[in-house]
Amino acid sequence: MSEVMSGGKWFTEVCEEGGSAFSLQIRAKLHEEQTPFQKIEIYETTHFGNLMIIDGFIMLSQRDNFLYHEMIAHPVLFTHPDPKRVLIVGGGDCGTLREVLKHPGVEKVDQVEIDERVTRLAEQFFPELTEANDDPRAHLHFEDGIRWVADAAYGYYDVIIIDSTDPIGPAEGLFTQAFYSDCRRALGEGGLIVQQSESPLLHMNILKDMHHAMRGAGFLDTATLFFPQPVYPTGWWTVTMACKDNVISGFRKRDADDRPFTTRYYNAAVHRGALAAPEFFYPRIFE
Amino acid sequence: MSEVMSGGKWFTEVCEEGGSAFSLQIRAKLHEEQTPFQKIEIYETTHFGNLMIIDGFIMLSQRDNFLYHEMIAHPVLFTHPDPKRVLIVGGGDCGTLREVLKHPGVEKVDQVEIDERVTRLAEQFFPELTEANDDPRAHLHFEDGIRWVADAAYGYYDVIIIDSTDPIGPAEGLFTQAFYSDCRRALGEGGLIVQQSESPLLHMNILKDMHHAMRGAGFLDTATLFFPQPVYPTGWWTVTMACKDNVISGFRKRDADDRPFTTRYYNAAVHRGALAAPEFFYPRIFE
Repeated sequence: MSEVMSGGKWFTEVCEEGGSAFSLQIRAKLHEEQTPFQKIEIYETTHFGNLMIIDGFIMLSQRDNFLYHEMIAHPVLFTHPDPKRVLIVGGGDCGTLREVLKHPGVEKVDQVEIDERVTRLAEQFFPELTEANDDPRAHLHFEDGIRWVADAAYGYYDVIIIDSTDPIGPAEGLFTQAFYSDCRRALGEGGLIVQQSESPLLHMNILKDMHHAMRGAGFLDTATLFFPQPVYPTGWWTVTMACKDNVISGFRKRDADDRPFTTRYYNAAVHRGALAAPEFFYPRIFE
Repeated sequence: MSEVMSGGKWFTEVCEEGGSAFSLQIRAKLHEEQTPFQKIEIYETTHFGNLMIIDGFIMLSQRDNFLYHEMIAHPVLFTHPDPKRVLIVGGGDCGTLREVLKHPGVEKVDQVEIDERVTRLAEQFFPELTEANDDPRAHLHFEDGIRWVADAAYGYYDVIIIDSTDPIGPAEGLFTQAFYSDCRRALGEGGLIVQQSESPLLHMNILKDMHHAMRGAGFLDTATLFFPQPVYPTGWWTVTMACKDNVISGFRKRDADDRPFTTRYYNAAVHRGALAAPEFFYPRIFE
């Protein structure tokens, strides 16, 4: 919804469940299209760079997407002892893919995005996110991620990253115990999944259901990581990891310290800090 | 500024330096007055409880103020080895005072708020924040905090908490090297100050100036803590600590673990995590 405030043009996302709204000032609408799956809009903002909107919800801005993309990629990859084969479900903007490919030990990344137009528009309007797409380790598939996981060979992947929209609409099936069961089957020994898991101030019901569904699917342990994401409701966001057959205790801290690539948010201390749950959190997850 | 979105009534705060705006849906305006210092408004929101606005900027909501108040109070108090005498400059809503008084070792708290109306309105509209005001250790003074600190006895306080509005308007003098020098003089051995220090995504200039001014005033070490605060711009906020004569390394973790009071956000792991700076942060503070 566009609003007029202070005389400028704004994009406003209303968060019904929070009784809140977040707005960014707009210079221009760069693109709008209805794909077979969803409506995509691209705006140029005054202070947050380009902005992608899907079905009225902010997906990412050039200014702050590094927080989310680094935190959905690096913690899970430094938790697995030696991730070689990675699957990204969703992730069409390719920002997560770029971070994953920074890990020299990763040998193959399958990315399965249902809507090819997300990736084509990212190439056009967020070229810095797609700059690693020509890496020979990257394999982009424009298919249904749920079917891909169901069809995957037993134990094939080391890490599955579920980088999807909210659990309404096309992404709903990615938040179910049946899907997590298929993920677990597709993971090798010590395998991990990670999924974006909404705001701890607004969506404790989703977080609770997710922890229980992952454990119900047979994952031995789950852990939520907390980080800022200004363009999402409350500015406070999470990803949740689950390990097939191990307790999630610590991570490859020395490798994280010595990582042979640059980050803007992530480092080993941030990783450890992101695992520190607010006092209210786990009692409500496991009440 | 009030806006009409989705047919409801909204309070909107525009953040000029971010090209962004944050809105909360309103049930009713409960109060408005112009004090000698500032304009105060109180609203009842649909999802965030009561809301206090000063000069058009959101100060606090009932739903999320626990994040800020816990993080400006507990980390600094668990960093000092044995805080007995605490000064709060500002803090008129008394939420910080309530957290400070949870520490049984604290013997005296002076709170120096320039605008008595803030406290009186907090008593009326945020009664849970003022519930500890009758504690005999609490001494409320409605005076100029800058003058109070300048007049304080040498070495009198263990901890000074600067819980103010943004560094424009009445609070401007609380962000200067001259004020920090007076604070340092008023602190005893091992003494610490802590101050709210804005958003790391929008206000790196303020954070940089603050670290340099604190060190310029003679403080030996400074450290910024990061935490979520949904009603402030970007939802990502900080407090910055400075120690008179020691390096800030760790805190009384066992005491934090065994604290004889409840919190909703703070715990020892959260404290340690809040000290983890984003990779971009300190290179830009000390460039």
